[in-house]
Amino acid sequence: MAPTVFVAVIGAGLVGAEFIRQLLSIPNSPFKLICIAESTCIYYDEAKPITDVATWRQTLSASTEQPDMHLLTRRLSALVSAASSKVAVVDNTSSQHVASLYPVWLRAGINVVTPNKKAFSGDVALWEDILAASAQSGAKCYHECSVGAALPVISTLKELVATGDKIIKIEGVFSGTMSYIFNEFSTGHADPGGPSFSSVVKQAREKGYTEPHPADDLNGFDVARKLTILSRIAAQSPASHLPRLQTFQSFRTTSLIPAALEGIPTGDEFIARLPEFDAEFAAMRTEASKEGKVLRFVGVIDPVKGEVKAGLERYPMTHPFATSLGGSDNIIMFHTERYSPRPLIVQGAGAGAAVTAMGVLGDLLKLL
Amino acid sequence: MAPTVFVAVIGAGLVGAEFIRQLLSIPNSPFKLICIAESTCIYYDEAKPITDVATWRQTLSASTEQPDMHLLTRRLSALVSAASSKVAVVDNTSSQHVASLYPVWLRAGINVVTPNKKAFSGDVALWEDILAASAQSGAKCYHECSVGAALPVISTLKELVATGDKIIKIEGVFSGTMSYIFNEFSTGHADPGGPSFSSVVKQAREKGYTEPHPADDLNGFDVARKLTILSRIAAQSPASHLPRLQTFQSFRTTSLIPAALEGIPTGDEFIARLPEFDAEFAAMRTEASKEGKVLRFVGVIDPVKGEVKAGLERYPMTHPFATSLGGSDNIIMFHTERYSPRPLIVQGAGAGAAVTAMGVLGDLLKLL
Repeated sequence: MAPTVFVAVIGAGLVGAEFIRQLLSIPNSPFKLICIAESTCIYYDEAKPITDVATWRQTLSASTEQPDMHLLTRRLSALVSAASSKVAVVDNTSSQHVASLYPVWLRAGINVVTPNKKAFSGDVALWEDILAASAQSGAKCYHECSVGAALPVISTLKELVATGDKIIKIEGVFSGTMSYIFNEFSTGHADPGGPSFSSVVKQAREKGYTEPHPADDLNGFDVARKLTILSRIAAQSPASHLPRLQTFQSFRTTSLIPAALEGIPTGDEFIARLPEFDAEFAAMRTEASKEGKVLRFVGVIDPVKGEVKAGLERYPMTHPFATSLGGSDNIIMFHTERYSPRPLIVQGAGAGAAVTAMGVLGDLLKLL
Repeated sequence: MAPTVFVAVIGAGLVGAEFIRQLLSIPNSPFKLICIAESTCIYYDEAKPITDVATWRQTLSASTEQPDMHLLTRRLSALVSAASSKVAVVDNTSSQHVASLYPVWLRAGINVVTPNKKAFSGDVALWEDILAASAQSGAKCYHECSVGAALPVISTLKELVATGDKIIKIEGVFSGTMSYIFNEFSTGHADPGGPSFSSVVKQAREKGYTEPHPADDLNGFDVARKLTILSRIAAQSPASHLPRLQTFQSFRTTSLIPAALEGIPTGDEFIARLPEFDAEFAAMRTEASKEGKVLRFVGVIDPVKGEVKAGLERYPMTHPFATSLGGSDNIIMFHTERYSPRPLIVQGAGAGAAVTAMGVLGDLLKLL
């Protein structure tokens, strides 16, 4: 018989709500959903777990308790001590504050599962504290969805490293937004004929593929954070020359925000002014297509050279980044000593509530 | 601190030897290699685990003990009872006999890790007994490498199913041999110009990509076995109409062995006579290329139609099976409700000692 796992969910937005839906839909579930916390309220009752997928939102709204993370920590710690069951926090926020609590939870024996990138891509001290806390108590911290949503990226890299494979290069399109933008903008066909850069960004925003302020995607930070997460794992591979990354800003990330548009406060204004720079982007596209190449915003981790970088690169029309990508897919290629000369490739949707929630639930299932 | 796991390895051929090399190369290893068994001899000593990657073969050869699987079972069962540590058998053979012992081991609390397809693709009764035994004792049976070597195929499918995703279709090139043969034979270029089918098969055999008797690849059984394994997992997906497959021969697999060459006893004779059928294969290629398509030997699992099949299919030049494949790569596309309209794709080497051993070791690491 599978053991019971007590689950506390923090964050009930798009991903959080979908996660709760999937969690409560598992037949004969070993999970007891004893807590849901949002920024304004919290439901907590060990004796009365939430079970009904149709009414959990009402149950949460009916609670008059304010969320208090320190109280939550005390309650869950007591539960770990009292129960022979496992306890897990599922952090579906993108909060730095919640991320900063992982070491406390892990030390208390509380497992952590999350798609939140903050803890693993920010200050290296927090990341190292998480590793130490987990090693100390044995509690697990799973975050497969912090890169490529449910795509098996982190688990694959960890297995390559743990079994002694030598990572030669990891190269990929890590941002669904950037993927969509350049799949549409740069198809390799000779100019003229392609859409303008600003029109593609505008369209991506209208489809909900970008953040409300597109500069939050075009700055490349999302890609830089994902690279940081993977690089810290790859750095444990034999013969790696990767540096100890202090933060996700410790290496070169090429922003696509035109210098004149840096600091523009609203997304609307940004979109309105972006056409001023269409000629620049079109010129880059023309140059690439003259070489028979397309533009892609990629991340590269190169343990041989000891280099990590994110930016716009050119790829021949026969390259998988040109032939195989579509929509807002991610693609990640692992070149290793064993996967050589041809890489291991993982591809598919790297964002979206359904696949992200699935990956989080998949991590939670690993606790069984 | 990670717990100790006692490991007994059965089979020390290409994959087995590479597995032992990788296992013994893990720094601060939690694994104790207490047994290596081959068909003619066995080393077993709980008190003196094998640790030296340079001398294990000599240690094994020096043993005068005959392998006795029943004695091994008794010894390992006693170890499970006595020790608080985990015990695992790693079956690196392709033996049906060893596979038939998995339920006994699992019931005794001995974990099983293997790339051997036999137990999961043969008689459904054995497969169901393995599931029941594992559920009963809690011992694990991992066999990621039975499909696509270390590529994350089975783990990905299991996660899709366990989290409630609906599998719409799984489609892939599952045989490295078939992949190589058709990547070389059918490139989509107009005829004439391509190599003959027999010359490609001959070359594949010379490179060691085929079995000694190429008919053992061309019969499609290897693909049928892999499809059986995946289909039995996918059948647990919501709304699946997949049948309960009695064996890997319970569905349509198109053999590529010309009828007149069925039952030819030696690989040499088979290769000598294959050119008689080059015109037939060339005609299929011409027909495909007239439509702008290539030939690929694929496996399809369709839970919506309730269909499983393996055979030669045509794919447009823009399809990933045409654009993205090379060498002897496997490629597997998961079309699901959540990965829709674009599938989750896993691609890379699906055979070879290094990657297979790595996948087996990866499974073993999951026991920690």
